[in-house]
Amino acid sequence: MKVFLAEQLQKANRAVASDNRRLLAAHGVTAINIIGGPGAGKTTLLEKTLERLAGRVKVGVIEGDIYTTRDAERLDRPGVEVIQINTRGACHLDANMVGQVLGELALPDLDLLFIENVGNLVCPAEFDLGEDCKVAVLSVAEGGDKPAKYPLVFHEATAAVLTKSDLLPYTDFRPEQVTEEILGINPELDMFLLSARSGEGIDRWCDWLERQLARKGFAIA
Amino acid sequence: MKVFLAEQLQKANRAVASDNRRLLAAHGVTAINIIGGPGAGKTTLLEKTLERLAGRVKVGVIEGDIYTTRDAERLDRPGVEVIQINTRGACHLDANMVGQVLGELALPDLDLLFIENVGNLVCPAEFDLGEDCKVAVLSVAEGGDKPAKYPLVFHEATAAVLTKSDLLPYTDFRPEQVTEEILGINPELDMFLLSARSGEGIDRWCDWLERQLARKGFAIA
Repeated sequence: MKVFLAEQLQKANRAVASDNRRLLAAHGVTAINIIGGPGAGKTTLLEKTLERLAGRVKVGVIEGDIYTTRDAERLDRPGVEVIQINTRGACHLDANMVGQVLGELALPDLDLLFIENVGNLVCPAEFDLGEDCKVAVLSVAEGGDKPAKYPLVFHEATAAVLTKSDLLPYTDFRPEQVTEEILGINPELDMFLLSARSGEGIDRWCDWLERQLARKGFAIA
Repeated sequence: MKVFLAEQLQKANRAVASDNRRLLAAHGVTAINIIGGPGAGKTTLLEKTLERLAGRVKVGVIEGDIYTTRDAERLDRPGVEVIQINTRGACHLDANMVGQVLGELALPDLDLLFIENVGNLVCPAEFDLGEDCKVAVLSVAEGGDKPAKYPLVFHEATAAVLTKSDLLPYTDFRPEQVTEEILGINPELDMFLLSARSGEGIDRWCDWLERQLARKGFAIA
């Protein structure tokens, strides 16, 4: 009975996700679902990314948080449309939540939509939101055993970003070994090691984003 | 309908949690439910704690992980009973999962039972397992905004442990400010700042554990 309900919910979610995907495609918007645990550095990565893309790519952000609007406030800046979803207890975004706010965004004016999920490395990976791709975010301070312990998000993602590389000297995180482990789960993943604080690796990440946009025919000015 | 089901599940969970609590109390076992996001440092804290308590307190561990037995292997050592629960996708432990393995532990021989929950700062806080208290674990590398963003676990906990204090010089985490914010959510919380790596603050944490044991009449040799 419980499994049945879970399957029904997933089926309903997939249907709404397909609607979201069609709507985004109709407006040529590339949507990226950012997933990682609390404190993985998702918002800081977006802050840095918005700086780099400013004036060249029209970006919108849907911020998923349980209660607060703190992350949305951090990303709110001229030229960027930010919408907050407060899940009020729910540990992940679902397609319905995203579908309800898509109409609030000026989609014809957007090239790229980031959807920052609730800080949780587990449940968000199970829910299709209608995005073009998922990006898994893991901080080097979280430890190298995380991919094996939370494989689903890496299995579902198109790219994995290892953040806070500035902390590498103070941890026992081995980026080569962790990369190998992640590629063992999903050999197709594009891998990034970067620090939003120092700026290391941010260019490569932004180049990758632009290649994702190019797939929908967007040419960077 | 969805809310109804959630309430029914919670009611059923509370009933099993009460059974677990009675069974643990009957054997004079103090049970502590450790909750934190992925990479908060829960297992490393337990490794250090087991070292300190070795020979004085008889400790058991229930390890909650989605798939792997890595954490259980890290904690497995002479004199410590470790049981792994693999949730196979579920993002938290529930009372039923814990109840099913309690019978596998030699409860009459135990003083203290750690239950390390799945790495998730959200969902585990909602499920009573029958523990005596919950401990919230947050790494200083996760950032100081986490208590406000994930308040439930701090609201439900008896103690909060800020881990990886050795990384403080390399982050913008302000322990006094975060402590104030946590106590704003729950003024009754006992607060700890420690590093399992350097050993800073571990004594105070172990003293606190012994006081929890003393409440059940246990006298440290």
